[in-house]
Amino acid sequence: MSLTLAQAATIVDASLAKGHELKLNPLTVVVLDAGGHLIAAKREDGASLLRPEIATGKAFGCLAMGFGGREMARRAQAMGPFMNALSDLTGGKAVPVQGGVLIRDAAGALLGAVGISGDLSAKDEEAALAGIAAAGLVADTGDAA
Amino acid sequence: MSLTLAQAATIVDASLAKGHELKLNPLTVVVLDAGGHLIAAKREDGASLLRPEIATGKAFGCLAMGFGGREMARRAQAMGPFMNALSDLTGGKAVPVQGGVLIRDAAGALLGAVGISGDLSAKDEEAALAGIAAAGLVADTGDAA
Amino acid sequence: MSLTLAQAATIVDASLAKGHELKLNPLTVVVLDAGGHLIAAKREDGASLLRPEIATGKAFGCLAMGFGGREMARRAQAMGPFMNALSDLTGGKAVPVQGGVLIRDAAGALLGAVGISGDLSAKDEEAALAGIAAAGLVADTGDAA
Amino acid sequence: MSLTLAQAATIVDASLAKGHELKLNPLTVVVLDAGGHLIAAKREDGASLLRPEIATGKAFGCLAMGFGGREMARRAQAMGPFMNALSDLTGGKAVPVQGGVLIRDAAGALLGAVGISGDLSAKDEEAALAGIAAAGLVADTGDAA
Repeated sequence: MSLTLAQAATIVDASLAKGHELKLNPLTVVVLDAGGHLIAAKREDGASLLRPEIATGKAFGCLAMGFGGREMARRAQAMGPFMNALSDLTGGKAVPVQGGVLIRDAAGALLGAVGISGDLSAKDEEAALAGIAAAGLVADTGDAA
Repeated sequence: MSLTLAQAATIVDASLAKGHELKLNPLTVVVLDAGGHLIAAKREDGASLLRPEIATGKAFGCLAMGFGGREMARRAQAMGPFMNALSDLTGGKAVPVQGGVLIRDAAGALLGAVGISGDLSAKDEEAALAGIAAAGLVADTGDAA
Repeated sequence: MSLTLAQAATIVDASLAKGHELKLNPLTVVVLDAGGHLIAAKREDGASLLRPEIATGKAFGCLAMGFGGREMARRAQAMGPFMNALSDLTGGKAVPVQGGVLIRDAAGALLGAVGISGDLSAKDEEAALAGIAAAGLVADTGDAA
Repeated sequence: MSLTLAQAATIVDASLAKGHELKLNPLTVVVLDAGGHLIAAKREDGASLLRPEIATGKAFGCLAMGFGGREMARRAQAMGPFMNALSDLTGGKAVPVQGGVLIRDAAGALLGAVGISGDLSAKDEEAALAGIAAAGLVADTGDAA
């Protein structure tokens, strides 16, 4: 099973709706498939110019390593040189902070990842979780369920 | 005046609708602002993995040079070494073929660009023109109006 | 359905066996998943140093564009500037010659790609076809079936 | 004497077998020759997408500097700026953590390196040591023998 455009578009729009509800800063939401390739993205008016790359990097980093953004953030603290190497290894495409969330199906199979940037990382993640839930899929933040 | 997310999303969705109407291959549509930064994008199910980068490259190349994709394609034929240099200069982000279209307002001011990839370049462009028209904006293909 | 390591290893070993049967030059065989990421690879003794990257590039190029190496080769002849741009766009990871073959299941779903380098491109492809057949999968060379 | 494909394939398969015996996470094993070029690689089902590059980076880093991954890890702690420079210098191809091991013959001559990624770095290394031993060769972890 692959993540469809219909599912990805739902994740993007529901994440943005959650951001509005929480009165967050303008968000950028990017959804990647399991191979790390873009399916859908939106950047809200007023978001700064690199937000699409940051959001992509949060999602891609999670897919690169196979765990959610909370674990990425922990490793960035504990293993600085490795995370620097990971950034170089990916041409800068792996951004190790909260706000990247793996997308799984009910059986736990990896379907892709969502990355959000624009507000505090924990708020970005909160919007991502709402988006994944709206699509009826399962979020993996990198913490044990 | 800047291109809004609402306008960009309309361009993406109307371009995809036109592709469906014309029974085109799965399309990827990317809309960039006047600074060359992503506002919205969708890749349809079945589109190959590099389509987002190709569509982005068509749009970015047009913004880089300031004219639409038809003129980009003509220059690629007439000025191969320059276009190769342009590709290198942008880190591969300028793709000189039809399917990139500048977006202008009624007064001719540049608002951004749309790039589409997935079918023949002329068909990609046809979908882009429908998208821009649906947003009530003006398309600049690189040919005299 | 994803391409498994067991299937990929069969493709690699059967491709090399075909090369021996045909008395080809030392081959390098690389199998990528549908997202363009390596599953298995072998470079035979005596193969030159860049063969892994060339084989990877043949496979990745096919996945990037969504068709087999014969169509890549035709487009490289007909659309030089686009193919140069594609090479730059992928950081040199798309090599547009025969010897890259898409791997599909019986229903036509894309599972990945194999790339082979070492002998004449047509011979490289012949070995790839034997490998894919040995895994019970369907080869897509870019020609109509 | 050069590392042969037969030896490299033994290292890959025996490393994976050790991983199964130890019930490790899905592993990716890459074997490079003394020039840093790929001979053989396998990524197990369920391993995340960047594991081939990380495993390659562990092996390449060891060859780049001429010592095993334990010494690479020590220097990453002690000499952060140098290791960051090394990462940049190699285009991100040198990953300074445990799990890269030099491969030597009985006389101490350098034949290549193996890199493994997927579990904790110390576990990755344990699998690599089993692989090198299975090929009848000598592992150099970066610690005095």
